[in-house]
Amino acid sequence: MRTQVAIIGGGPAGLLLGQLLGLHGIDTIIIERQSKAHVLSRIRAGVLEQGLVQLLERAGVADRMHAEGLPHEGTIVAHGATEFRVDFRALTGTSVMVYGQTEVTRDLYAAREQLGAPTLFEAQNVALHDIDSDTPRVTLTAAGQEITITCDYIAGCDGFHGPSRQAIPQDKRREFEKVYPFGWLGILSETPPVHHELIYSGSDQGFALCSMRSHRLSRYYVQCDVTDHVDNWSDDRFWDRLRASIPDAFAQSLVTGPSIEKSIAPLRSFVCEPMRWGRLFLCGDAAHIVPPTGAKGLNLAASDVHYLSTALIARYSDGDDHALEQYSHNALARVWKAERFSWWFTTLLHRFPDQTPFDLRMQQAEVAFLSENAAAQRSMAENYVGLPY
Amino acid sequence: MRTQVAIIGGGPAGLLLGQLLGLHGIDTIIIERQSKAHVLSRIRAGVLEQGLVQLLERAGVADRMHAEGLPHEGTIVAHGATEFRVDFRALTGTSVMVYGQTEVTRDLYAAREQLGAPTLFEAQNVALHDIDSDTPRVTLTAAGQEITITCDYIAGCDGFHGPSRQAIPQDKRREFEKVYPFGWLGILSETPPVHHELIYSGSDQGFALCSMRSHRLSRYYVQCDVTDHVDNWSDDRFWDRLRASIPDAFAQSLVTGPSIEKSIAPLRSFVCEPMRWGRLFLCGDAAHIVPPTGAKGLNLAASDVHYLSTALIARYSDGDDHALEQYSHNALARVWKAERFSWWFTTLLHRFPDQTPFDLRMQQAEVAFLSENAAAQRSMAENYVGLPY
Repeated sequence: MRTQVAIIGGGPAGLLLGQLLGLHGIDTIIIERQSKAHVLSRIRAGVLEQGLVQLLERAGVADRMHAEGLPHEGTIVAHGATEFRVDFRALTGTSVMVYGQTEVTRDLYAAREQLGAPTLFEAQNVALHDIDSDTPRVTLTAAGQEITITCDYIAGCDGFHGPSRQAIPQDKRREFEKVYPFGWLGILSETPPVHHELIYSGSDQGFALCSMRSHRLSRYYVQCDVTDHVDNWSDDRFWDRLRASIPDAFAQSLVTGPSIEKSIAPLRSFVCEPMRWGRLFLCGDAAHIVPPTGAKGLNLAASDVHYLSTALIARYSDGDDHALEQYSHNALARVWKAERFSWWFTTLLHRFPDQTPFDLRMQQAEVAFLSENAAAQRSMAENYVGLPY
Repeated sequence: MRTQVAIIGGGPAGLLLGQLLGLHGIDTIIIERQSKAHVLSRIRAGVLEQGLVQLLERAGVADRMHAEGLPHEGTIVAHGATEFRVDFRALTGTSVMVYGQTEVTRDLYAAREQLGAPTLFEAQNVALHDIDSDTPRVTLTAAGQEITITCDYIAGCDGFHGPSRQAIPQDKRREFEKVYPFGWLGILSETPPVHHELIYSGSDQGFALCSMRSHRLSRYYVQCDVTDHVDNWSDDRFWDRLRASIPDAFAQSLVTGPSIEKSIAPLRSFVCEPMRWGRLFLCGDAAHIVPPTGAKGLNLAASDVHYLSTALIARYSDGDDHALEQYSHNALARVWKAERFSWWFTTLLHRFPDQTPFDLRMQQAEVAFLSENAAAQRSMAENYVGLPY
């Protein structure tokens, strides 16, 4: 098989890249390790920056998002006695869109099928070859067949554990990592959200986040020990901890119900440099991970896709390689900013095992300062709604 | 002896308080452990916030500062390849004044002598008594005499090691502390400053600060091991390290010369709560220490003096105790903000022994973000020139 751009990974990053390229007449094959049903069963973040909203519009997959998504013009931040709203609209002139990553993925698959672009599901033994030559190849096994895909370029959109990043020689990449000493215990419940905007809350019990997927589907998280097990967390225990971790007025109006999903996720910061090696270009989690505080994961994948799609379109329409040469530099510049914001926002609101009373006061002082300093709030809001591409 | 307010400590905090009270007809006695010559030999910071400048004006001791001080309308911040100027004037509408703490102290002594207000120097065995009664006392030995001072109130302006804070029962105060794993090696040299504004620089060699006392007197610092000794640092070694720690263009134009003072200071964050116990009110270093990055030490003492002088004047002129009751609350609110800023600015630019490559990238990303985000710069500038009292 031959294509122009082989895309490894059929999550939202690979799909969005395929769609933006397809609309410009560039052929892609997407190679996905899982089944489509499995991909669509993954529950992920659901806060879209304005830049991603615009990318989805450009990709022609924004109709359902605009119909069903919830524009959020602010968020609540709390820590101990301090509680305030960050007004995105007033501070930045824009907002974010609450719309589940699963829904984005679903919309992108529908569009890809309409475009007639091929996706190989349940691909096994995916391997990259000759990525530093002009004739890179991807080999895999699918439906019992050995398949070789020759291509001009490979987009590695296959997440943290995928083979793409590993295809860059170990002595040619540098990896930066921070593993946080806690996890997030999250549940999904068919209950109305406690508030119409998100609540990020630091407390004596640790961090909590009140989020949502829709007016009837809530997503809540509490900080937990990363070695803990969901079996230790009955719904009642979860709701008790959540109530104790958010401001009283919200705790009192919280509507609880049975959880329909419950899981513990670790928190990690990770960046691989460079994001390009030869004809291989990494996008999203393949190159970088952020802790979920501030919901930058999907949005950062989208900014990579923006840079890469623009560069590939310039290459195929004008024969101009310049943006491809600059891809790693440009993508990483924005990656490090989002890494910084996600690290800062995580550090601001979580309890750390080695936190001293002074450290805790620094958190409280920073939240208090943020609550009353317009410039600091604006800086935070600009990061939250998304820095410009 | 009897006075209305006994002030323990004849540094700038105690002197400024005495002056502001004296101008409102409130009697004070200042009790200083050292000789006046010793107090005036101490070399300290020299960046005055606008709030302190105005306090010195109100105290009638601002003439020489306005004649000889250097108004600074911005500062240079650098980290690795990033270098930029923070424009205080454009971002906040105001500026800071570079004028040595020693000079402020000298001006305040001259004014106190003109006022005819008493200062007891070389006071030994200073002790506070009955501070939670209506008749507090200070006892001391001076010039071989045992002296008892009865008073209405005691102001503890006697620094971190003075007896005032210790007079608050141990179980009634809470102390917060962070000791940084490095020190500052500072020199004073009779050379023209490398730049007309201050340079705060993070580098592979650690932090450096280029500061000044006048157009002919420079004050430079480099980060060092806190257990190091000045004997290990020849002038040549110091200048080499400084050159390696600041941006090249400045390194090349640095004028060096013999040091006329050289010392190593530890860096510490410290806060004692409350700042009032009965009739005792703590001001400045007696209650809190900041690391010197951002020069908040003297300025924070001045904001305490602002709150305390205002409260005492209200008490003596209107019999109104309310502001005295609120002193600890109001002073601490601003203290924690300055602690946060000093901690943040220190953390941003120093090398830490346990810093991972990821941590270092977070520093670099934060400096890069600050260099290009107007809101973040404004928030930093508002802190640097001084948050409102």
